[in-house]
Amino acid sequence: MFKKVLIANRGDIATRMVRVLREMNIASVAIYSTADADSLHVQLADEAICVGGPKPTDSYLNMKNILSAAVITGSEAIYPGYGFLSENSMFAQMVADLNLVFIGPKPETIDLMGNKANAREYMREAGIPVTPGSKGFIHDADEAKKVADEVGYPVLLKAAAGGGGKGMRFIAEANELAPKFLEAQNEAKKAFGDGAMYLEKVLTDVSHIEVQILRDNFGNAVYLPERNCSLQRNNQKVLEESPSVGVSPEKRAYLGELAVKAANALDYRGTGTLEFLRDNKGNFYFMEMNTRIQVEHPVTEMVTGLDLLKLQIEIAANEKLTLTQDDIQIKGHAIEVRLNAEQPELNFAPSAGPIDYLYLPNGGNGVRIDTDLFTGAVVQPFYDSMIGKLIASGTDRKEALTRLHRLLDEIVLGGIKSNINFQKALVQDEHVKSGAFNTKYLENSFLPQWLAEVSEHETV
Amino acid sequence: MFKKVLIANRGDIATRMVRVLREMNIASVAIYSTADADSLHVQLADEAICVGGPKPTDSYLNMKNILSAAVITGSEAIYPGYGFLSENSMFAQMVADLNLVFIGPKPETIDLMGNKANAREYMREAGIPVTPGSKGFIHDADEAKKVADEVGYPVLLKAAAGGGGKGMRFIAEANELAPKFLEAQNEAKKAFGDGAMYLEKVLTDVSHIEVQILRDNFGNAVYLPERNCSLQRNNQKVLEESPSVGVSPEKRAYLGELAVKAANALDYRGTGTLEFLRDNKGNFYFMEMNTRIQVEHPVTEMVTGLDLLKLQIEIAANEKLTLTQDDIQIKGHAIEVRLNAEQPELNFAPSAGPIDYLYLPNGGNGVRIDTDLFTGAVVQPFYDSMIGKLIASGTDRKEALTRLHRLLDEIVLGGIKSNINFQKALVQDEHVKSGAFNTKYLENSFLPQWLAEVSEHETV
Repeated sequence: MFKKVLIANRGDIATRMVRVLREMNIASVAIYSTADADSLHVQLADEAICVGGPKPTDSYLNMKNILSAAVITGSEAIYPGYGFLSENSMFAQMVADLNLVFIGPKPETIDLMGNKANAREYMREAGIPVTPGSKGFIHDADEAKKVADEVGYPVLLKAAAGGGGKGMRFIAEANELAPKFLEAQNEAKKAFGDGAMYLEKVLTDVSHIEVQILRDNFGNAVYLPERNCSLQRNNQKVLEESPSVGVSPEKRAYLGELAVKAANALDYRGTGTLEFLRDNKGNFYFMEMNTRIQVEHPVTEMVTGLDLLKLQIEIAANEKLTLTQDDIQIKGHAIEVRLNAEQPELNFAPSAGPIDYLYLPNGGNGVRIDTDLFTGAVVQPFYDSMIGKLIASGTDRKEALTRLHRLLDEIVLGGIKSNINFQKALVQDEHVKSGAFNTKYLENSFLPQWLAEVSEHETV
Repeated sequence: MFKKVLIANRGDIATRMVRVLREMNIASVAIYSTADADSLHVQLADEAICVGGPKPTDSYLNMKNILSAAVITGSEAIYPGYGFLSENSMFAQMVADLNLVFIGPKPETIDLMGNKANAREYMREAGIPVTPGSKGFIHDADEAKKVADEVGYPVLLKAAAGGGGKGMRFIAEANELAPKFLEAQNEAKKAFGDGAMYLEKVLTDVSHIEVQILRDNFGNAVYLPERNCSLQRNNQKVLEESPSVGVSPEKRAYLGELAVKAANALDYRGTGTLEFLRDNKGNFYFMEMNTRIQVEHPVTEMVTGLDLLKLQIEIAANEKLTLTQDDIQIKGHAIEVRLNAEQPELNFAPSAGPIDYLYLPNGGNGVRIDTDLFTGAVVQPFYDSMIGKLIASGTDRKEALTRLHRLLDEIVLGGIKSNINFQKALVQDEHVKSGAFNTKYLENSFLPQWLAEVSEHETV
């Protein structure tokens, strides 16, 4: 087992890892920006090194400084968490080149799954169902039309080498295809020097269902119970839960076995999550794979009793996964809401500043609050607005939801603005209560209605 | 189900019950003494009524005022928690006489189990093994000697109607028996007007193992996994855990079935705990039954996932226990330490005053902190020094203990003195780590050694 691990992250996930390392009797090295000198992960870690200024590119994305910190402190491994450098294959490679362990999959796996077109092709070839669309890449409009006619409109045209929306077009009808294909391909050639395209049917009324796997260096793999993360805004998850409403034990095993099959094909190392879309007929399609721990991992920990961060460390240290699939049993239901320093009523504008009073409602069963906040902490404007997670579990979904509502009622967060009221309304929403929501529900139905109610309340 | 419940308690257990009621959509009525006006249970409850001055007899033991508060607020039931009026059969009867529900067993059950001599006789007749000793009561020294010779010395002679040590004698050898019997019997006659005595073998090197049961009004009963509460000082539990080291699944079922048998014999209602002593040969003997929820219930909740307070309410509301014995599975291991406002190094002198800074280490799996403290709360000098419970669970005992150690390391409690350092030393102790301790270990071995180390440290 490692003697010392550097945590290349900040905030709650860095704090969590300091604690996990302490419980494993491994020394922890925190890194921090000048803005974060007094933050909790720095206070709790065994050692802490400042790696640069407040801007992420100067500190938490500053590979050279982070690697120097690892070498100077004699760290044997680097934990990337989520965000920042967690899915940066170059960083993973540099860590390996220094003979240190990157706690995550191999750089080539990160690369392969990082490119959505390649990931889709890889999974299709591995026998994982993907969204209806092109098989392999397409090179001209005729080929595109043939596929689109087959799968049905609307379709999304994407550049194989793409990213950031470049070379991407939404095609509502057949007659738009030819001109938009040329446009998109030219844009792709210009941006990436590559005109290979692919095409996917646009699925409407879908749920986001994801399956996390764990796989060790010896080929032992298990899947964890699925999470439903359909409540999203701007493709950011807002509320996540496990298990998912409407997933039967048979479907769970089917999805899980698919995920393990994919992980085996990739010779995957560590933990990763396959995200699927479920259409309204109950079909599942692979969407993408995240090659890191996810923000929503606590709901899985609460229903399984596992410590997934600890398992990440063990696998990275070349230990065998002793866990078998039968060991993984679902106990009740768990739901997480993200606590963000933002103003939902003002288009989710971020908020920052010192926390002048904090009350976290501890106590009782099924309550978990993951945060690095404390009375006197300062929420910095330089980073993601997520400042914590409130997670509640219960013997069933209703109990978990009721408990989560209570937590949102009791929490006191003085000094900054937050999304507490928004989340409180969300967990009381009838569709959320009944589990009847798709990936567009929050944005298209809940949010406009909530905003109307908030503004009405304000004008009274 | 009830619409409104009055909580006849304070502190953490009152706060917990306010939360449980909120989760059950039942209105809560808090009572408080003038000293507790700003405490958390008062702040969180739907209604709160002051029932008297700071002294317990003026407020939390003031039956008339508490019952008036229940009537005035239209409460349908009264929850007594632990301590205060929780095992007061007169109070339970008065509640019933007002046509309100006392959330606990029938007054006659409280009475029967409240008298240790009667409880022992009752259990013996119900077929529950009791400590070796007299069968029925004894009336003269000859009879006593016959029993004592049979079970072996030392023995403890007790008054059947006794309490508070009156009429109790420790008998080390046969020749002490006759004179001490007379002495004790005279004392008992004088104090209680009753000279009936009983006699028990004094067991040394024993563990305290207890089994909690739940039983509804329809005769459905289940037992919960056992707790080991052997680490005690002055008969006060200090650290509790579930399950117990050295209790096999067969022994667990044996003990559990004994407990259910006892509950059935008593036509028991609600939750209660049978406390057993385990001798060093692995024999179990009934010691006493507590007819209320216990301080250490969280460890059971953590390993079973149940909410025992919620179940108390449901049973009291005449609902059927839907839980079957098969539903109760042990998941991992949980350990609780009591957080007390006291100075262990100064003979555990109590401490009181305002909490000027509080940091509770939330986060991660297997962490539970039950307390009504908050930054700005005031620890009152009038009540029990227990101000909270730190509970950690893990996949195994080692993980739970390591996690508990971390919690004790991280917690910040400014403004008062506490037993944090004492508990930190306890969870690091080799005997505690290995599970090799009896009911005298803390007092006779750990404490003197710890005090020596503390004073040595101070003089350096």
